[in-house]
Amino acid sequence: MKTIELRTRSRTEFVPIGDAVAELVAASGVREGCCLVFSPHTTAGITINENADPDVRTDMLKELNSVIPFKDDYLHTEGNSAAHIKASLMGSSATVPVSGGALRLGTWQTLYFCEFDGPRTREVWVQVISG
Amino acid sequence: MKTIELRTRSRTEFVPIGDAVAELVAASGVREGCCLVFSPHTTAGITINENADPDVRTDMLKELNSVIPFKDDYLHTEGNSAAHIKASLMGSSATVPVSGGALRLGTWQTLYFCEFDGPRTREVWVQVISG
Amino acid sequence: MKTIELRTRSRTEFVPIGDAVAELVAASGVREGCCLVFSPHTTAGITINENADPDVRTDMLKELNSVIPFKDDYLHTEGNSAAHIKASLMGSSATVPVSGGALRLGTWQTLYFCEFDGPRTREVWVQVISG
Repeated sequence: MKTIELRTRSRTEFVPIGDAVAELVAASGVREGCCLVFSPHTTAGITINENADPDVRTDMLKELNSVIPFKDDYLHTEGNSAAHIKASLMGSSATVPVSGGALRLGTWQTLYFCEFDGPRTREVWVQVISG
Repeated sequence: MKTIELRTRSRTEFVPIGDAVAELVAASGVREGCCLVFSPHTTAGITINENADPDVRTDMLKELNSVIPFKDDYLHTEGNSAAHIKASLMGSSATVPVSGGALRLGTWQTLYFCEFDGPRTREVWVQVISG
Repeated sequence: MKTIELRTRSRTEFVPIGDAVAELVAASGVREGCCLVFSPHTTAGITINENADPDVRTDMLKELNSVIPFKDDYLHTEGNSAAHIKASLMGSSATVPVSGGALRLGTWQTLYFCEFDGPRTREVWVQVISG
């Protein structure tokens, strides 16, 4: 298992990690299988979405922050319950096919680390599975 | 890795693909492991839900379209930000156990391709992993 | 593939299953790979989130039940469409890295079975994949 370390800059932010994951897959020597990209945090998730227009990320964050408000009479005294909920909505991981020795994302896709309680120092765990 | 091609008919639609995936698993010869069912698109996802009453799908789409409105002052000029968000809420993939050489869904489950920006010609990538 | 059986006590409830899954992984003998934790139900899901303060679970359930109301002019006559939708929002499964022979969750993470239409007797299917 490999670890990617990253530093987020904002309270909520989508950080592209597709290139870093693709490099780990290429270096793994696995030809056919899948790649598990996992967030070991409870206030951040992983998702796959558009790699081109950054407005898509902005819209996604704005809408998620609107549907799950930062304050909503939450009990959890740390004050970041909204981040926990958004992490579960995006999910703690993404699994991507590996074929021909490469990570196989669609043309317009990349992987994102989804920060919902930043800025923080974070990790992403990457496990390449030979099928 | 195998590809399922499909044509969606509506702007938002859940297309059942469980039977097609089960056939690919049976043909793969894998006895124990899992099956990764992956959407290479950014405005469509994959989910698992009820295979019996089609009203469930209708209710799911209606509610998702209500929570994430088609128009909501999005910046992305293509006008389909809602589809990007719903794709990430459902997720780009589902992973299903393979055991005894067969795809193992629950009695009431099937796999759905979730179209959120149709109608379009789409692909689903299927990777069967031997464990 | 192994099965965990559990009994939920409320209409909506997050049941911690991380310890039970970790035991199955340790017993499997798999050193490197991943573990697929799968709900074979259509009104319950699996998620990963905070293992410490139980208020987080309470906040998550309250917010999910607020965003997806129990009643909202749904067509499905069983009356549990909200549960189907929440199951897909959390997802039917979680996949967790296995490394050094152990389930590798983050410090503050555990796995939850997400009941959205209880109380019921439920199953979780666990497939450990050697990578």
